[in-house]
Amino acid sequence: MVATAGIIIIGDEILTGRTSDLNINWIAKELNLIGVRLKEARVIPDEKKIIINSIKSFKQKFTYVFTCGGIGPTHDDITTESVADALSLELEKNEEAMKRLKKHYSNTKIEFNEARQKMAVIPIGAKLIDNAVSAAPGFNIDNLFVFAGVPRIMQSMFDSIKGNLIGGKIIFDKTLTCDLGEGVIAKSLEEIENKYKNLKIGSYPYFKPEGYGTSLVLRSEKKETTLSATADLIKIIHKKGGNTYFLD
Amino acid sequence: MVATAGIIIIGDEILTGRTSDLNINWIAKELNLIGVRLKEARVIPDEKKIIINSIKSFKQKFTYVFTCGGIGPTHDDITTESVADALSLELEKNEEAMKRLKKHYSNTKIEFNEARQKMAVIPIGAKLIDNAVSAAPGFNIDNLFVFAGVPRIMQSMFDSIKGNLIGGKIIFDKTLTCDLGEGVIAKSLEEIENKYKNLKIGSYPYFKPEGYGTSLVLRSEKKETTLSATADLIKIIHKKGGNTYFLD
Repeated sequence: MVATAGIIIIGDEILTGRTSDLNINWIAKELNLIGVRLKEARVIPDEKKIIINSIKSFKQKFTYVFTCGGIGPTHDDITTESVADALSLELEKNEEAMKRLKKHYSNTKIEFNEARQKMAVIPIGAKLIDNAVSAAPGFNIDNLFVFAGVPRIMQSMFDSIKGNLIGGKIIFDKTLTCDLGEGVIAKSLEEIENKYKNLKIGSYPYFKPEGYGTSLVLRSEKKETTLSATADLIKIIHKKGGNTYFLD
Repeated sequence: MVATAGIIIIGDEILTGRTSDLNINWIAKELNLIGVRLKEARVIPDEKKIIINSIKSFKQKFTYVFTCGGIGPTHDDITTESVADALSLELEKNEEAMKRLKKHYSNTKIEFNEARQKMAVIPIGAKLIDNAVSAAPGFNIDNLFVFAGVPRIMQSMFDSIKGNLIGGKIIFDKTLTCDLGEGVIAKSLEEIENKYKNLKIGSYPYFKPEGYGTSLVLRSEKKETTLSATADLIKIIHKKGGNTYFLD
């Protein structure tokens, strides 16, 4: 079985262009390393109906679902209540979360007020996800992982649950660059892909002041397949008068 | 009527983490400037069925749909045929596109071979979108705009169609930063939002070595609303002992 994943980024600030999302790329790389295939990433606004529908559909479609954003103390943080709605769960002020937050704020001059206590409200039965940065936990229900949106906090949360994710076969990839245009090798790429089972070749043209060329990424679950296909490709590039460079 | 938009980013390279998407943020900012509300951005793999379904659903939901990626000459470039399928259109080798590509390649040492001619294949009836960088055009059908994925090319394509987009009311926003934690002002933010019609306040905590605080973005279609709400908010922050700084 191939383990799959979907990411839901929740936040108006991404959709207005105010903030650049950094979480998709970071999680994508982590999942790739453990053999979980990221199949979709979606950026949606702070709107309850849309959050609920996205969570419902992703939970069914993917092995793992990660949400980022909307679990802070303010009025626009509506992810937790949307999750509860989507999964028909009740919310409670989680004791352990309250303890962690109280402890965190007791070391500061910050008052642990009503708004901040909202961050301890979590669906009944959810497992807490540690927040090493600012204490307010994320949470996990079945295959759904609810993270903060601030990249540093999200990363610490992901790290703390990473060990629980069961990956599939790890993809063995090889990246090379050549100084031929994409169009020169397009047909050969297709032929090589058809020759090998389960091989995928990605082709990414680049244009720089020094010249143009194509980056190629060969991916397969078998090391031998990737290496053999890479050797084929290098031969063809050289035959067509191109030079090859390895990026890894 | 509010003009809305959806972005579909097509490409395995984003989902494996190899490449960071730069197009969502760039388009988001452009749309914001002309009063078109970006409602969703979706990153999907190079899989025909998924591309077709995303295009069909977005075309119905949003005023404008933009796709980025998958219109090059190689085997993994399947956006154009997926668009034709989604809209039940036939494909043709577009005369004008052929002319532009031939001219482009005649100035280079690059052969205008079969693979490259694939970039002139476009659904019948589509309007070409100029590509100032590498000639191979994007295309437009109804409310769907099909762009290249390379940011520089995508940007030149967007610029060439931007004048055709009809925006709604432009949002007037004000960004300010304060040195209070999000939790201290959470309740006040909600009260201010409820006081004004159609005002939205986004609240974004930050943590830096120098200290922590909250960035606040107030948005409304009316300048007076945004300014008056901003004045209210500054008063409250000062009353709570905080300092405010303007980012714009």
